[in-house]
Amino acid sequence: MQIIESNSNKKIKELAALQRSKKERTQAGLFVLEGDRIIRDALATRKDLVDNVYVSVSYASEKGVPTDNAVVVADSVLSHVCETVTDQGILATVREEPLLRNEEELMTKDRVLVLEDIQDPGNLGTIIRTAEAAGIEAVIMSSGTADIFSPKVVRSTMGSILRVPFTYSPDIKKTVECLKKSGHVVYAAHLKGAADMRKTTFEARRAIIIGNEGRGISDPVAELADIRVFIPMQGEVESLNAAVAAAILMYHI
Amino acid sequence: MQIIESNSNKKIKELAALQRSKKERTQAGLFVLEGDRIIRDALATRKDLVDNVYVSVSYASEKGVPTDNAVVVADSVLSHVCETVTDQGILATVREEPLLRNEEELMTKDRVLVLEDIQDPGNLGTIIRTAEAAGIEAVIMSSGTADIFSPKVVRSTMGSILRVPFTYSPDIKKTVECLKKSGHVVYAAHLKGAADMRKTTFEARRAIIIGNEGRGISDPVAELADIRVFIPMQGEVESLNAAVAAAILMYHI
Repeated sequence: MQIIESNSNKKIKELAALQRSKKERTQAGLFVLEGDRIIRDALATRKDLVDNVYVSVSYASEKGVPTDNAVVVADSVLSHVCETVTDQGILATVREEPLLRNEEELMTKDRVLVLEDIQDPGNLGTIIRTAEAAGIEAVIMSSGTADIFSPKVVRSTMGSILRVPFTYSPDIKKTVECLKKSGHVVYAAHLKGAADMRKTTFEARRAIIIGNEGRGISDPVAELADIRVFIPMQGEVESLNAAVAAAILMYHI
Repeated sequence: MQIIESNSNKKIKELAALQRSKKERTQAGLFVLEGDRIIRDALATRKDLVDNVYVSVSYASEKGVPTDNAVVVADSVLSHVCETVTDQGILATVREEPLLRNEEELMTKDRVLVLEDIQDPGNLGTIIRTAEAAGIEAVIMSSGTADIFSPKVVRSTMGSILRVPFTYSPDIKKTVECLKKSGHVVYAAHLKGAADMRKTTFEARRAIIIGNEGRGISDPVAELADIRVFIPMQGEVESLNAAVAAAILMYHI
């Protein structure tokens, strides 16, 4: 068994590049997944997604290799390419393309979440995780949304990235128009909404739009929505964190 | 008017120390607040809290000094002690002590939130912000909870730190016992709770406990709760982000 012992090994350099840069990820069509449980789950249920698995020497000696063609790497070298502080000695390169669904297919679903320009990776990952728990069937993101394959987003999804169907839309206005045509009632979370969330009846076939952390949903998109809903707020709070607002709305419905 | 032009000025070194270390904050009894709007609000409504205000030369020439005894600092020196990337040219040192309420006083409130060992500063700040919006009247934190006066928590509260009454409890188990004695029904958010949030009736005089991100509420505290509630989750999600779970529960009630 050959063990990679150097940070300047070609494969290790490729891993570091995938962790660092969206451009590198897009060119390779790969992103990096970290963590024992999630990688074993992926190998068991979505083997088609997994490109390569890397384990540290310690991991291999304690738990064995999770797949025959896993690459064994010196502990310090694996730590070097892990984003998490407490790395578990295992990471995998995963294919992006099969996870990026076809937009028309997503529009056949009843419970759709639309994200416009969510910027913070932690917020995006948390929203994907909460969306799965709330039973959202499809997530469509504007092209200005953070890269879902970046390490911090992947980590914040806690595995939901492999399970929630999602895609990016090149034209989010057109997406909302298409959703309306396909029978969805479109609700926009809006600070100046006319409808109090608590007094709003939500249709079974629906799309909810959540906007950017700072400026909310853009006017052209908000105008397309059937109903602009607001989340009631007490005190002098001006707005809620985007992931929190999304969670409250998804769960309220 | 004297302008501080050096990073090694005594006041600037003190500011840097307050930003960096909990020990320094506790010793001085001060923390740092950043941002134009929030500092002007504090000066208008809670002048007793404000120790000192520091503005950059640019800020002073554009907007004037917000208070007579504000200290003017070279732009680069102020940036040096700002935690936010896009600093607004103004920060203030604020007294911790008047913000730390008396625990018995907080127990007279009807809607209490108890936090046990929330570790992530972003989560803690977001919970405080959401708590204000949800009408929580008191937040009691275990001593193992992150430092609410650390820069990242302060920033994530978006000003709510000055408005939501809170304190730290040296013994969170005793706190929960006292809450029960003072007539609160205590609800613990628990993954293995017996009560579905949607089917639970929440009493007007109540305390909600939210636990640590990784391990949830400790067993001794969970056992003290009157009712352990769970948030229903679909898919294969194992848990929700702590700030999200807190938000869903607070708003559901």
